[in-house]
Parts: sequence; C-alpha cells; structure tokens
Amino acid sequence: MDVNIIKEVRQKQPLIHHITNEVVMNFSANGLLAFGGSPIMAHAKEEVKDVSRFSDGVLLNIGTLTENQVSAMIIAGQAANEAGVPVVVDPVGAPANKFRSESIQTILESVKPAVIKGNAGELAHLIGEEIETKGVESTGPGNEKSIAERVAQTYKTTAVVTGKIDVVSDGAKTRSNSTGHPLLAKVTGTGCLLGSILSACMSVTGSNVTKIHTALEFFGAAAEHAASQHEVQGPGTFAPRFLDALAMDPEQLRRNDQ
Amino acid sequence: MDVNIIKEVRQKQPLIHHITNEVVMNFSANGLLAFGGSPIMAHAKEEVKDVSRFSDGVLLNIGTLTENQVSAMIIAGQAANEAGVPVVVDPVGAPANKFRSESIQTILESVKPAVIKGNAGELAHLIGEEIETKGVESTGPGNEKSIAERVAQTYKTTAVVTGKIDVVSDGAKTRSNSTGHPLLAKVTGTGCLLGSILSACMSVTGSNVTKIHTALEFFGAAAEHAASQHEVQGPGTFAPRFLDALAMDPEQLRRNDQ
Amino acid sequence: MDVNIIKEVRQKQPLIHHITNEVVMNFSANGLLAFGGSPIMAHAKEEVKDVSRFSDGVLLNIGTLTENQVSAMIIAGQAANEAGVPVVVDPVGAPANKFRSESIQTILESVKPAVIKGNAGELAHLIGEEIETKGVESTGPGNEKSIAERVAQTYKTTAVVTGKIDVVSDGAKTRSNSTGHPLLAKVTGTGCLLGSILSACMSVTGSNVTKIHTALEFFGAAAEHAASQHEVQGPGTFAPRFLDALAMDPEQLRRNDQ
Repeated sequence: MDVNIIKEVRQKQPLIHHITNEVVMNFSANGLLAFGGSPIMAHAKEEVKDVSRFSDGVLLNIGTLTENQVSAMIIAGQAANEAGVPVVVDPVGAPANKFRSESIQTILESVKPAVIKGNAGELAHLIGEEIETKGVESTGPGNEKSIAERVAQTYKTTAVVTGKIDVVSDGAKTRSNSTGHPLLAKVTGTGCLLGSILSACMSVTGSNVTKIHTALEFFGAAAEHAASQHEVQGPGTFAPRFLDALAMDPEQLRRNDQ
Repeated sequence: MDVNIIKEVRQKQPLIHHITNEVVMNFSANGLLAFGGSPIMAHAKEEVKDVSRFSDGVLLNIGTLTENQVSAMIIAGQAANEAGVPVVVDPVGAPANKFRSESIQTILESVKPAVIKGNAGELAHLIGEEIETKGVESTGPGNEKSIAERVAQTYKTTAVVTGKIDVVSDGAKTRSNSTGHPLLAKVTGTGCLLGSILSACMSVTGSNVTKIHTALEFFGAAAEHAASQHEVQGPGTFAPRFLDALAMDPEQLRRNDQ
Repeated sequence: MDVNIIKEVRQKQPLIHHITNEVVMNFSANGLLAFGGSPIMAHAKEEVKDVSRFSDGVLLNIGTLTENQVSAMIIAGQAANEAGVPVVVDPVGAPANKFRSESIQTILESVKPAVIKGNAGELAHLIGEEIETKGVESTGPGNEKSIAERVAQTYKTTAVVTGKIDVVSDGAKTRSNSTGHPLLAKVTGTGCLLGSILSACMSVTGSNVTKIHTALEFFGAAAEHAASQHEVQGPGTFAPRFLDALAMDPEQLRRNDQ
C-alpha cells in the first residue's frame, strides 16, 4: 500500500461525478465522503457535460441502467475524455441480458475509460467469454489474471477483476490483492463503492496500477478491520464500521491489524 | 414458524427481481441479502422481461410509481406469470389518489400475483372499501381477517394484511401473527422489505399460507430481538441490528427470546 | 429553542411531501420519521398535485434534478400554494451550472416558498452573487447575515443560510444558530434532511423565524449529542446515533449536554 496516494486524496478531496445505480447512491456517497473524496451525483442530460468536465473523476456504473442513462453516460464520459478527467466504468451485470450487454458496448465504443472494474464474469463478457453468473454476481471460477490482462489490452485501459483475490492489470504490469472480508458480499453496493474509491485514487499522481492496487488493499483492509470489531454481529452492524474504517489513517489501519 | 422454509431459502439464495420504490431500494437489498436471498433491481422496459423470467421471484411495489414503471411492472409480471415465477404485489398508498388507485388496478388486471401484501387500508381499497389513512399509512381500525379473506378470494391469491396483528389468508385457510415491534414503524421501508422476504420464502416448497406465516413470524421476531439489544437507543441504532437479526439462525432467534 | 414547537410536531406528525434527490431519499425519510414527522415521496406528474394539497408541508430539493422533476415541482408547489401548505425550497448546487441555475429560477418564478434554505453559495446565487463553491458545497467565506436578509426580502420568504453558523431571516428579524458538528459534513444528505425537519416545523403554529431557529438549534444539538457518544468512531457510526438523537426529547437533549 502506498499511503501517500491516500494522503494525497485526502488533501485534494477530489470531486467524483457519479452516474451510478439508484440502489447504491447513498452508500457510495457516504463511503467516498468517509474516504476523503467529494461525491456529486447528476444524470440529467442537460447538466452532465458541465458536471463531468469540472470534476476530478467520473464513475459510470450500469447497475440500474435505462436508455436515458446510456445517453447521459456517453455525454459525461466524452466530456471527461476531452477534459482529461479519468473515467472509471463498472459494467454491473453486463452478461445478464442483451440490453446490458449492448449498452455497455455502446458506452465503451464512445468513451475511453481509464479503468474498467468488475467481477470475473463481467470482465470476461467484455472480451467475448462467458463465466457462470447469478443475477449480477459471478459464481463460476475464472482465470482472473488472464481476464484482467486481456481486458486491459483490448480496451487500452487499466482493468480490475474483483473477487476473493483482486487483480489489476494495465496489460503489461499485473498485481493482485488479497485483503477483504466475506461480509463485503452481504452489504449491497460495496463493489459499486469500490468504483468510487478507485475514481478518487485515479485523480492523484502515480502509476495507474499502483494507485488502483493501493485502493484495493486499503478497501479490503478497512473491511477486515471493521469485521474484527466486537460490536459487529452481522451485515447490519458491519456497514457503519466499514464506513468508519474507510476514514481511518492507513498507517493506523495497518498497525491495528498486526 | 417452519424453520425448514428459512433454511431452504438460505440454501437456494433465491434471486428476487425488484421493481420497487426509490426510497427503500438500498434497505430492501440489504435486508434480503441478510436474510439469505439475492436481490436484483432493474426497471428498464428493455430488460425487465429477461430479468423476471430468470428470477426466483418478482416483487412489484408501487411506492414511488411513474407511468414508465407501470409498463415495466406489467411486462415483468407477465413474463414471471408465463415462466411460473411467483409475483408479490405491494400496493403502497393505493388509496391515496386516483393515479395510484388506477395504476394498481391496471397492474392487477394484467398480472396474476401469488401474494398481495399491504396494510388494512391498502388491501381494503382493492375490494372497494375505504379505511382512514394518512399518507401511505393506514390509521383507522379495520377487520383485517375479513379483508385478507376477501382480497384472497377476489384476486385468487394469498393476501397478507400487515399491522399490529398480521393476517395471511388464501381465501380458505387464514392465520395470524403477533410478532413485531413498534420500532419497525419508525424505520422507512420495513414494510417494503417484508415484501422482499415474502418473495424469497415464496420461492421454496410448502403451502403458501405456511411460507408466508413463517416469513411474518421470523420478520417480527427479528425485530423483537433487535429492539431488545441494549445498544439500541432509537430507530437509528435499531435498523442495523434488525438487519443482523434477519441473518440469524431462526432457532437461535427463538432461544434468545425465551 | 422553543420546545413546544417540537412537541407540537410530534403530536401532529405532519405529512411532508418530498420531491427530493435520489441520493438522500432514504436518509431523509428516516430522519423525518425519527423527528416525529411522516414522509411521503412522490414525483409522478399524475399524482403530485393530489399529494401536495393533502400534505402538511412540501419540500422541493433540486439535488438530482431532471426536466421531468422541474415540471413536477411546479405542479406540486402551485397546488401547495393554493391550499395554503408551506413550501420549503432547497436549491442544492444552484450555482454549479446553467441547468440548475435556470431551473431553480423557473421554480421560484412559479412557486412561492415559505422557506428557502441552502448554503451561502446557493443563496448568494439566487440574488445574483457568486461565492466560491466546490461541487455542491460552498467553500468561500460570505456574509451569511446579509445574504439571508436579501434573499428573504427579494423572494418575500424566510431565508436560511446554513454553515458553521446558521442564519435565518424573514427580511426584518434575523437570528443565528451555532449548534452543529463537523461530522454532519461527512454524512451525505444531512443538509437535505434539515430541509425535511424545517418543513415539519413550518407545519405548526408560531412565527417563522422562531420555528426555523428551533429546528436549526435542535438539529445541531442532536448532532453534538450523537457525536459525543463513545461508540461513535467516525461518520458510519455517527449516522445511526444522529437519527436516534433526532427522536429525543428536546429537554433531555439539553440536559445531557450540560
């Protein structure tokens, strides 16, 4: 973990423009605020261009996609591309049906993402492979390393495959992360919030793989720390302590868990 | 309480397609995850057919209804009916105004629900009777048993009237449940989340009245258990402990409360 | 703090019609419920007129505005004006871009608000002045008292400028409030929830400045009380205890903090 990346985020308080799904808006905003970023959520076609180009990062998450949202995402993503603002794309449930699959392809043909993040099934789908999924969760085994590398190469981006072991690759350099906790899967939107945290880390200086790896490691360590609190008895009491942990000093978080 | 129903839900992790109101999406998803189900929320007309027919249950909740949502609900509900997927309908605020009243009638003329659940005022409205309500809450007294039986008979469904005493009826067999806690009324969306839990229980084997009664009893017992925790000082601290309790072993929950 | 105002709210349980932003719907509903009000959220053009005129207050918050919402807000606001129901307007992010700026002007030309609340940047924008902002937060210093007075005079309303020191003015009488806590800024939607609490207090008897001042003082005192709990380790654990505190007896809250 490069703690300077997190410190730089907290100094900068990057403004992250979210066009994300309705289920997770509140949790993503709270998680990003805790981590040290500044969320803005706007999806009206009339304003997304203005919001994106004045942001420090743009997150496009297709979790509850509509036709209107696809258009707004393309406008926002292209404005970000023009302004040099990094775009993070989260293709939630892309393999689930034709509408999601075609919409994400349309978005990726129009917008150049700095980062594409998703589970193995979602990222495999983007390179024409299918892994067993249930709803929006991928359940089958996959070769995460190979998937990350090929998505990175195909889309000329940094690819993140999340799972028990997370993998990040820019096509040349690949790293993995093993921090995390099973309770993350019992709280809705933790994966979506990770997209917000990745967006914040992309707004500071450093190599993409290092920035993303730091974000993954910190996020998982925060979950481990929260889950270890004795007041945590299940997913309900885990969530607020996870938000608290996202606000912690990374060095403190590391010390506490040793 | 038939604990096998809850155990079967947790083994199956049923995928429940929600077209529900925006206020409660996050809480419903978290509550269903805690209980052992798997939520998916999608309301674009382009995908609801595909999502519904591959789900284990469909929940239609009209809490923040729009014209677009009525169309999406009918497409999703009909796809579920064709595929034999049980549909749970929650007519939130149906008596409140003409738009809600007419929309729910349109939905119920197009979709055959396995379960209709609501408070006394909402269910009475569906059989042409009016009970005093305030906003989306029914406040007047009603004959819950008679309302449940007549809704079940009129719509050839299983009807659930929620309240201090919950009543479930398939038109022939009727049972009541008295578990629950006043704090449930101080957290938004607990009634909506109950719809998610009912949907999950409808996806496993057993008679409808038994499955629904088990869900009602477990849900109320979880609330009682959460409210009894000494850290709970009000609705804010109750909500996370209620989510924790929804994840508990039903036998453990029973033992703790004896 | 005039505790009778809060007692009267709790007796009346005012129904507050929210057309508010998607990020905060759940938190606003839970906060208002805790405080003693009764939230209803509805934004379909087909029903907003009916909902508004039978409510005890209407809150219009432009946090995630769309063209459709502007129309719904005008219908709801005009129905409330006709029925004598007080309207609270929260011009979230009004200075951020042309769409928000023009939309709020359209709303304020069509609807007469009883209260306009926002941060210094948002309210200054409504009288043609610009203060440095970041996203939807105002960051520059401003003369809050002067801004509140001029907004009140220009719009013939009661104006509330929120910040480290909150200021309320009806154009003639002006009061300030210094309760509050920095953690409020680390939880998304606390300012939006304040709009719900103000709406609830506007539904009871008393002078507007006194009612608003009581709401501001109680809201900030609740935050201070919550933040002082030893279980609170960050924004995640603060939020549920803040909701608990909003449900507290105002006299108890005062005693505890002495």
